[in-house]
Amino acid sequence: MVDELRKNESLGDLGEDRILSRLADFGGWNARVTCGIGDDCSVCRTENPAVDQVFTSDATIEGIHFRIDEDPVRVGRKAVSRVLSDIASMGASPEWILINVVAPKEMKLGSLEAIYEGIQERLNTLGGVLVGGDLTEGSVLALHIFASGTLPHGTAILRSGVVNGDLIWTTGKLGGSAAGKHLDFIPRVREGIWLRNSGLVHAMTDVSDGLVTDLKHMIETKKVGAAIEARVLEAMSSVDQALYDGEDFELLFTTSPDVEESVQKEWRKTFAKPLWKIGSVVTSTQEIQLHDEGTYRSLPGGYSHHF
Amino acid sequence: MVDELRKNESLGDLGEDRILSRLADFGGWNARVTCGIGDDCSVCRTENPAVDQVFTSDATIEGIHFRIDEDPVRVGRKAVSRVLSDIASMGASPEWILINVVAPKEMKLGSLEAIYEGIQERLNTLGGVLVGGDLTEGSVLALHIFASGTLPHGTAILRSGVVNGDLIWTTGKLGGSAAGKHLDFIPRVREGIWLRNSGLVHAMTDVSDGLVTDLKHMIETKKVGAAIEARVLEAMSSVDQALYDGEDFELLFTTSPDVEESVQKEWRKTFAKPLWKIGSVVTSTQEIQLHDEGTYRSLPGGYSHHF
Repeated sequence: MVDELRKNESLGDLGEDRILSRLADFGGWNARVTCGIGDDCSVCRTENPAVDQVFTSDATIEGIHFRIDEDPVRVGRKAVSRVLSDIASMGASPEWILINVVAPKEMKLGSLEAIYEGIQERLNTLGGVLVGGDLTEGSVLALHIFASGTLPHGTAILRSGVVNGDLIWTTGKLGGSAAGKHLDFIPRVREGIWLRNSGLVHAMTDVSDGLVTDLKHMIETKKVGAAIEARVLEAMSSVDQALYDGEDFELLFTTSPDVEESVQKEWRKTFAKPLWKIGSVVTSTQEIQLHDEGTYRSLPGGYSHHF
Repeated sequence: MVDELRKNESLGDLGEDRILSRLADFGGWNARVTCGIGDDCSVCRTENPAVDQVFTSDATIEGIHFRIDEDPVRVGRKAVSRVLSDIASMGASPEWILINVVAPKEMKLGSLEAIYEGIQERLNTLGGVLVGGDLTEGSVLALHIFASGTLPHGTAILRSGVVNGDLIWTTGKLGGSAAGKHLDFIPRVREGIWLRNSGLVHAMTDVSDGLVTDLKHMIETKKVGAAIEARVLEAMSSVDQALYDGEDFELLFTTSPDVEESVQKEWRKTFAKPLWKIGSVVTSTQEIQLHDEGTYRSLPGGYSHHF
């Protein structure tokens, strides 16, 4: 009954999370879907039993994800990097890419080509081959990018792998994305593959909507909580920026506390940059708590996109 | 030099064909891409040497592909059927589907769900499993749908398979799509798979932009021409409607003239509807000619989308 009434509510009134949970019911399942709608990518069996395929898509739209006067090379970089970050957060290698572009008829060919140069730049570095797409006229520039990736069967790292007592890590500093990082970030494809290969990671996602929102999506899968250390976030940027800025596109993952030293050591040998241990998974609460010198406070929910 | 000057031209002045030929240069190639940008789908090798995968994406946008007051179930049907028609035109079976939606915040949840019902209806009948997507707020309703499909290695039917002397066929009547067929058509997935299995088809595409435009895309690949019979088109709808209406979403394919009778006979046994033989491939011209009781005329180019 409540469900039926909702049908008359507008998308703007409902908010993204409730709309998505309704739409998820239309997601299909068959014996070859290992993980359907709800994670960073879906995970599907392939014709080769040793290999799984992951799928994701993202929209990057003028006025929402970039300013109308933004350098088109940076727009292309961001658009494709967002889907590559989803692929990375499963621990997969990018494979096939398709791009639907909606562009105003006044746009110069040079600008459109510059967008594709930005896309090509990232694909050349991180993998993924552009094999298709569509072009339509429209008043607002929009890039809808689809990506597939592959990884060994059964090794995709889901959000739902989170375990009580796990340490929570990020692959880099959070916060301050508005200064330009949100356009020029390099998706952590190599790091994701390395982490998956390590066999030590329980759960993983990328920080796109902000630490609080993305961590919440992870802990909700197991109805657990998280304790985050304020002093670590302070060392990244500021506590508030690290918690809420979003568009950091670092990987957020958990491991058993037993492997703390080995993960740190091997990571540093490979990437020559620090791995950030930001807190741990707890069952004393189902919230995210910020711990600061012996005191703590519960954190309100983060950013919920548009709608 | 000419190329450099083009960079300052607007997309509207250039037109779709020239834009797409520039963008195709950004398409990637590696040893596993059998057919890149330029056909109805790209064709890629998979981890299983016996199976190829095909990929396509299409945009379906309010005001361009459907009216603002259209029944949302029909909008969903059309959006997904367009990509399923691309999959059909390679002879492939649909597999994974992702949908990026851009929707106004005033839209009712019930309308959005009705779009997904239309999509689900087609997938339930024709195959393909919805495994992902994205939702963004925007003033104009847009559906960007991505689809993959599979088929036995090396069996994808390309436009470029066309051979001089081939007969040209369509799987159904052309013309008159504006009366509603463009929303409710059933993509010829079963027919496409059957035709591929027959082993008799040289080249195939779907009639989306209109017979003249889509046939032109086929014969251009081999710099050959086509002779079309006016009396056959007349029997479908009217000559002009059949040539130019577009959005018929029938399959357009060619076979050797030697198999004319066996194709007709086997087709009729399976589908209980006629197969339409509309003309033949010729080398006397690189145009499309309309033949009518001993006379003929060259046909001007067809509809070129938007831009």
